[in-house]
Amino acid sequence: MTLILNNDEIQQALGVKDCLELMEEAYRELAVSQAVNRPTSHSYLAHSLPEATYSFKSVDGGVRKFGVLALRVTSDVVQNKGTGDMVRLEKLPLAGRGQFLGLVQLFSVETGELLAIMPDGIIQQTRVGVTSALGARALARDNSELLGLIGTGGQAQAHFRFLTAVRPIKRVKIFSPNSEHRKAFAARMERETGVPAEPVDNAREAVKNCDVVCTATNSSRPVMKAAWLEPGMHYNAIREFEMDEAAFEKSDVVAIHTRFGGIQHYLPPGLDQDLPGVRREKPRDWSRFPEIQDLLVGKSPGRASENQITFFLNNVGTGVQFAAMGYCAYRAARQKGLGKEIPTDWFLQDIKP
Amino acid sequence: MTLILNNDEIQQALGVKDCLELMEEAYRELAVSQAVNRPTSHSYLAHSLPEATYSFKSVDGGVRKFGVLALRVTSDVVQNKGTGDMVRLEKLPLAGRGQFLGLVQLFSVETGELLAIMPDGIIQQTRVGVTSALGARALARDNSELLGLIGTGGQAQAHFRFLTAVRPIKRVKIFSPNSEHRKAFAARMERETGVPAEPVDNAREAVKNCDVVCTATNSSRPVMKAAWLEPGMHYNAIREFEMDEAAFEKSDVVAIHTRFGGIQHYLPPGLDQDLPGVRREKPRDWSRFPEIQDLLVGKSPGRASENQITFFLNNVGTGVQFAAMGYCAYRAARQKGLGKEIPTDWFLQDIKP
Repeated sequence: MTLILNNDEIQQALGVKDCLELMEEAYRELAVSQAVNRPTSHSYLAHSLPEATYSFKSVDGGVRKFGVLALRVTSDVVQNKGTGDMVRLEKLPLAGRGQFLGLVQLFSVETGELLAIMPDGIIQQTRVGVTSALGARALARDNSELLGLIGTGGQAQAHFRFLTAVRPIKRVKIFSPNSEHRKAFAARMERETGVPAEPVDNAREAVKNCDVVCTATNSSRPVMKAAWLEPGMHYNAIREFEMDEAAFEKSDVVAIHTRFGGIQHYLPPGLDQDLPGVRREKPRDWSRFPEIQDLLVGKSPGRASENQITFFLNNVGTGVQFAAMGYCAYRAARQKGLGKEIPTDWFLQDIKP
Repeated sequence: MTLILNNDEIQQALGVKDCLELMEEAYRELAVSQAVNRPTSHSYLAHSLPEATYSFKSVDGGVRKFGVLALRVTSDVVQNKGTGDMVRLEKLPLAGRGQFLGLVQLFSVETGELLAIMPDGIIQQTRVGVTSALGARALARDNSELLGLIGTGGQAQAHFRFLTAVRPIKRVKIFSPNSEHRKAFAARMERETGVPAEPVDNAREAVKNCDVVCTATNSSRPVMKAAWLEPGMHYNAIREFEMDEAAFEKSDVVAIHTRFGGIQHYLPPGLDQDLPGVRREKPRDWSRFPEIQDLLVGKSPGRASENQITFFLNNVGTGVQFAAMGYCAYRAARQKGLGKEIPTDWFLQDIKP
């Protein structure tokens, strides 16, 4: 039977400890050539709404030890909103009753079968949060007790959950521009994790005196200044443009998630300009930075002293992350009897493809 | 509701005329920048069987006019069989009860929703046969009456069906190495299409005096000699290596399916040699040949006289073909009430991915 999960079931299925363990295993497998990544590709078509584009994104990756390859796809309509400097890209909830489509499909490496289909929402937040936590476990001071978190969305939630799991964090300072959001977020996360959380009035305040700082926003402009980095601090970013460029120079140890592949963009041939929402950021040269698996297997040095500033940039997603977290959800859902089933046979054929 | 189809239903749904019409429309849309292709990628992992590899292939493409983007994936275990010069690659039927997994998934360009999931077997044969037929319609003599066909597999079947639909073919000569196969194939296709079919003893005999010749095999060695090309003949190949290289020079007009993208291969990083079954053929330079849509919209000249030899090489598959044929099957299945349904909602989420 092929398992169909929803986000609630995935949330129930994913245990913090399992996520950290399986993600670490996945990176270790990658380090010994037993995992594979295919870079993300985007295909675009014009959409009937003004300033809107259909965007189909896919990435895949597999981990032999788990016996799975994961394909992650998103099928989105994106639209430019605002004018001039204030243009931002929005995903439009045009599917179903104001919903979105993002899926992780798990295939068996041993038989080829389709094992599971699940939405990517929780998996996506989790894979980023867990990788950041592994980065922090490799680089942050063991005695880190104060966490500063900028952001209150799904990514911030995952980062709160997983960063507090890898270090003895006693308090979290929270900032986001909307004071209601940060208040509600702090209360919710404190309730969920038992770690005291306190909303603060600005980013500077959220960062000050922290052992670990994390920006978990969807901002394409810096929300973290290099000048705020303090001796002994570990800083984690989830987007390339969340922090001052100078953070690279000011940090004593810098590591990234992956040097693997830039995003490949495909437009209809012969278009003489990009469609709205097609953003082809110039890929940065990552070659000089160690990757997460280099830290995990000891190929690259981590923190050497209490006073160093360390910086983990969780720069680009990979298929291997979806394989690890998808497998984690699948395995636990099977154990707990979660989800719906449809016959695997529906997705098989006698014709040799 | 999301539609789930099987190969029988797809076979029922796909009408010859509709397939030809929609595929032509798709190419015309490609010619005016309203369709998109993403090149095929293969991701590989080691498999537990000897000389075997897990191979995950994916490609996507969309046509705005049809409102769909198609994702085609195959999830295969391939194994090297034989020794020395006789090594061949086989797909192992390890899924379900000795089956294979190949799927076409259709996504709505307007809403992002998952419209349908279907096996790729019939779609795959059809997309190749239909494109070859469009090539023949553009290049073969109008009065073509004798077709020579080499091959008796699924591709040969599709080519019999669609080539006889675009020219007034009165007789088909069939060759394949196994005499039982060619007898049974000829009888079956004659019954199905009403066009007389005659098995012959060798490839030379199958080609002689024909107006149209088609090789539809899975051979990686030439089964068609350039010396056999006769004035006025149209030749169609479905693989780059089915015919003598000299066929390019001997033909007066040569066109190909697509110049688009080579296959991208992804292996686990750090492997110092390829896994079994990873075949990275050096891409040929296609830049000097016109593509099918150039012929269809009159951008490139077709046949100029009755005596010219024309050659259509249906070289590489594209996502747009899967979008066109997948949409064709989906539309007809909806009209005829074929297939099973599952709630579209199962594949949607409130979380913005």
